[in-house]
Amino acid sequence: MRWIGIDPGLRTTGFGVIDVNGQKLSYVASGTIESGDPDQGLPVRLGILYAGIKEVLETYHPEQAAIEEVFLNVNPRSTLMLGQARGAVIAALVSDKLPVAEYSALRVKQSIVGTGRATKPQVQEMVKRLLRLSRAPGTDAADALGVAICAAHHAQIPKAITTALAPKNSSKK
Amino acid sequence: MRWIGIDPGLRTTGFGVIDVNGQKLSYVASGTIESGDPDQGLPVRLGILYAGIKEVLETYHPEQAAIEEVFLNVNPRSTLMLGQARGAVIAALVSDKLPVAEYSALRVKQSIVGTGRATKPQVQEMVKRLLRLSRAPGTDAADALGVAICAAHHAQIPKAITTALAPKNSSKK
Repeated sequence: MRWIGIDPGLRTTGFGVIDVNGQKLSYVASGTIESGDPDQGLPVRLGILYAGIKEVLETYHPEQAAIEEVFLNVNPRSTLMLGQARGAVIAALVSDKLPVAEYSALRVKQSIVGTGRATKPQVQEMVKRLLRLSRAPGTDAADALGVAICAAHHAQIPKAITTALAPKNSSKK
Repeated sequence: MRWIGIDPGLRTTGFGVIDVNGQKLSYVASGTIESGDPDQGLPVRLGILYAGIKEVLETYHPEQAAIEEVFLNVNPRSTLMLGQARGAVIAALVSDKLPVAEYSALRVKQSIVGTGRATKPQVQEMVKRLLRLSRAPGTDAADALGVAICAAHHAQIPKAITTALAPKNSSKK
């Protein structure tokens, strides 16, 4: 199963593609899409992110996608900008009929490093080890690869176990 | 010139298509796209909005697009949700190579009713009159048609006049 992970951002969106075969994870590709000069205006920048993701999909043909959830910035304008970038990226994924899972940064860090308080260098280092890379990827690409690894791990846990591990009140929602 | 106007929203996105020939405006189509049950998850709902806009574009072939700017909600989560919907809609427009203009709700109301404090029924009534409709469109469709009319008006004003009318300090930015 081939996964694409995405760390969305208006200025820079990170992507990471991995293959998952049982317990074995293999690195396929990773990188960033830059939306360029803010003076181009928001629609043009969103178009660059959208086209960039489409190009990655056409190149690597992932079968599943996972994207990092957005935290609410103290600055509402930043939240809005990040939300729009995330919307354009998700549109690119679903326009290709990809199922899209969502994971919080906290959950990704817990899954990769073992603690939600992990630093960016710790995530980079663990992604490097888990994928047996000769050197650590950049922060945005590492975050995206981390989302893909987290999603692949999570998809392997049988439903019965996730239910058993869930906090008791989770069935009341 | 055929314009599409969009009033973006996660639950309901309004669209309106008009033809502009000199001073003459003609109604082509309008309506809403509903993203459906929130339990489907955000990516599926954004996919419905994206596919809905693509279908409207394939049906009516507009040459220019205009979209309402998003105001910052007091609830940051609402701002984020609205931002993501707007991002997915803009992605659908730019994926069709449409130029996308942005107008604030204030500017649309000023352009259609003459005051930024116009109520929704006033916008509906003026859209009905300007497009010579037999009855007023629904609020979301009327807002979308309003954005298209505002954009079409604005595109017709020669640059020299907009500059002459601009506040003095606008050239300093």
